[in-house]
Amino acid sequence: MNSALHNDLIVIDGLQYSNWNREIFEQLHEGGVTMVHATIVYHEQIRETLLRISEWNRLFEQNSDLIMPVKSAMDIRRAKELGKVGIMFGAQNCSPIEDDIGMIEVMRELNLMIMQLTYNNQSLLACGCYEAHDSGVTRFGRQAIKEMNRVGMVIDMSHSAERSTLEAIEISQRPIVISHANPTSFHEAKRNKSDTVLKALSESGGLLGFSLYPFHLKNGPDCTLDEFCDMVASTAELMGINHIGIGTDLCQEQPLSILEWMRNGRWSKDMDYGEGSKANANWPRPLSWFKDSRDFPNITNGLLARGFSPEEVAKVMGLNWLNFLDDSLKPLNLGV
Amino acid sequence: MNSALHNDLIVIDGLQYSNWNREIFEQLHEGGVTMVHATIVYHEQIRETLLRISEWNRLFEQNSDLIMPVKSAMDIRRAKELGKVGIMFGAQNCSPIEDDIGMIEVMRELNLMIMQLTYNNQSLLACGCYEAHDSGVTRFGRQAIKEMNRVGMVIDMSHSAERSTLEAIEISQRPIVISHANPTSFHEAKRNKSDTVLKALSESGGLLGFSLYPFHLKNGPDCTLDEFCDMVASTAELMGINHIGIGTDLCQEQPLSILEWMRNGRWSKDMDYGEGSKANANWPRPLSWFKDSRDFPNITNGLLARGFSPEEVAKVMGLNWLNFLDDSLKPLNLGV
Repeated sequence: MNSALHNDLIVIDGLQYSNWNREIFEQLHEGGVTMVHATIVYHEQIRETLLRISEWNRLFEQNSDLIMPVKSAMDIRRAKELGKVGIMFGAQNCSPIEDDIGMIEVMRELNLMIMQLTYNNQSLLACGCYEAHDSGVTRFGRQAIKEMNRVGMVIDMSHSAERSTLEAIEISQRPIVISHANPTSFHEAKRNKSDTVLKALSESGGLLGFSLYPFHLKNGPDCTLDEFCDMVASTAELMGINHIGIGTDLCQEQPLSILEWMRNGRWSKDMDYGEGSKANANWPRPLSWFKDSRDFPNITNGLLARGFSPEEVAKVMGLNWLNFLDDSLKPLNLGV
Repeated sequence: MNSALHNDLIVIDGLQYSNWNREIFEQLHEGGVTMVHATIVYHEQIRETLLRISEWNRLFEQNSDLIMPVKSAMDIRRAKELGKVGIMFGAQNCSPIEDDIGMIEVMRELNLMIMQLTYNNQSLLACGCYEAHDSGVTRFGRQAIKEMNRVGMVIDMSHSAERSTLEAIEISQRPIVISHANPTSFHEAKRNKSDTVLKALSESGGLLGFSLYPFHLKNGPDCTLDEFCDMVASTAELMGINHIGIGTDLCQEQPLSILEWMRNGRWSKDMDYGEGSKANANWPRPLSWFKDSRDFPNITNGLLARGFSPEEVAKVMGLNWLNFLDDSLKPLNLGV
């Protein structure tokens, strides 16, 4: 009965990093996903980012019946009308701008709509959640936030440390996101966020995307849909129903080498295991109720069963993301 | 009478960044300089660093009667024997390795002998002296120090913040340098160093090069030779006579655009004035007794007049740097 509702929804996934191919696009389509924020780079620098964009251009050309690029929030509505999956580019680290503030506008012109200031480690802009100490947003970081605000590139602090995140919320003149993480109160993990951060985020008009990556969930891969929906409910109480969405962190069909790239980039000669360990170095086992994008209706149904109204479910499944992007992707002043 | 002594000395300048040309090489030669640590890059990344090296290769080819590259500490003695000026490459920021630990050995193979972990701002490795907060050496920084120790690349913390500097001294298994700075007790400046840092530096076998850049001196461009020599004397008491040398920070014949590059790199859209100010944005007026490298004998004479013995003067003017580099440039273990 609920699949009818699901099919009417604007469904937005606030983060995936899959080994993109036609089969995965078909799964997104089958799961009723209107738009996915696709990570195009982790630690890739400028030249490598351009390579990733050119690979995407080829995917758009070859799969134009299934997917389309998102160049504005309007394109999300168009994707829904056309029955296609919109792809919005994002970066998980600030490496696509290297050391150059001018690259923020250049990357935005190439439709990089969202960028994390840090990925686990210290960056030139701010501190990641794996460093021992966090000194907050740097001198360059303050300038970068101002420039991202200006050109309409969303600031994402999913992998950042607490002080840097609170400072970014304060410094940014536009709301920011944590596109894929969960509350620490639900599951203690370096990547999850304190109530202090989540409250500051929602009070400033920001958005949290709930992660379905097992490392961010209570009981890991054995986390039940009920437990997940309980977390959504308690976070809705904390942050308000308008400030939460989904950011599955689905990393599909990726080899171990990609996980090692995410965790180690080029900075380490020793193997860093990130959220895993030497004994548990590989990708986590997926959730039984969310194996790939075809399982999105399970979340819709789970939230309805948990007592959310259809209107509330519509917000969590995509409308909140859409409203956020409606405001956030508009450039403030490009001197025209 | 003292010029005879000066001519016998091994004279090492622990840092210059000049607009290198034949006239400047002639001045170095005339001033009796045996070797100069030449900054080849500030914020240049890998490709740009290779360009700077290729420009130096041309200078070596065109001026082989006056200068020679330093590829080991032995080359400093050879320069003295041949009556040439040795040029040792160094970087003022860690930009030549970008985000890649493997570039440390590659750059060392290209004779980059010394590298700062930071230049005023936060880097991927550590924190600079212009940031509001210093969280110390980063995860990447710890790995980089270990690798620099292994390949025999000297760690320079001249532009770093206090906590990062103390941590680098502690983490590094080999002594480090502060190639160009002065004690804060002599002149309060962001770039100068506390007694805590200077003591930790000397106790670990490290070296301080005294700066002659007016912003680092009491009374700026009006600092007298006597005042400078008093500072050398009091620092010799604090650190010991074996742990001090010269690092003039001479930036000769550079246009304002280079000062702006040093201060702003590519990170800022607003103009940053560094040690200057909007009303005082340009290069400082030079010292009357140290206008260029021909004035090196003035320092020798000043130290003798201040009561240093000829043996002590020889140490300060170059022997301490030579001894330090004798130990520090040898690779520890390159797996051969």
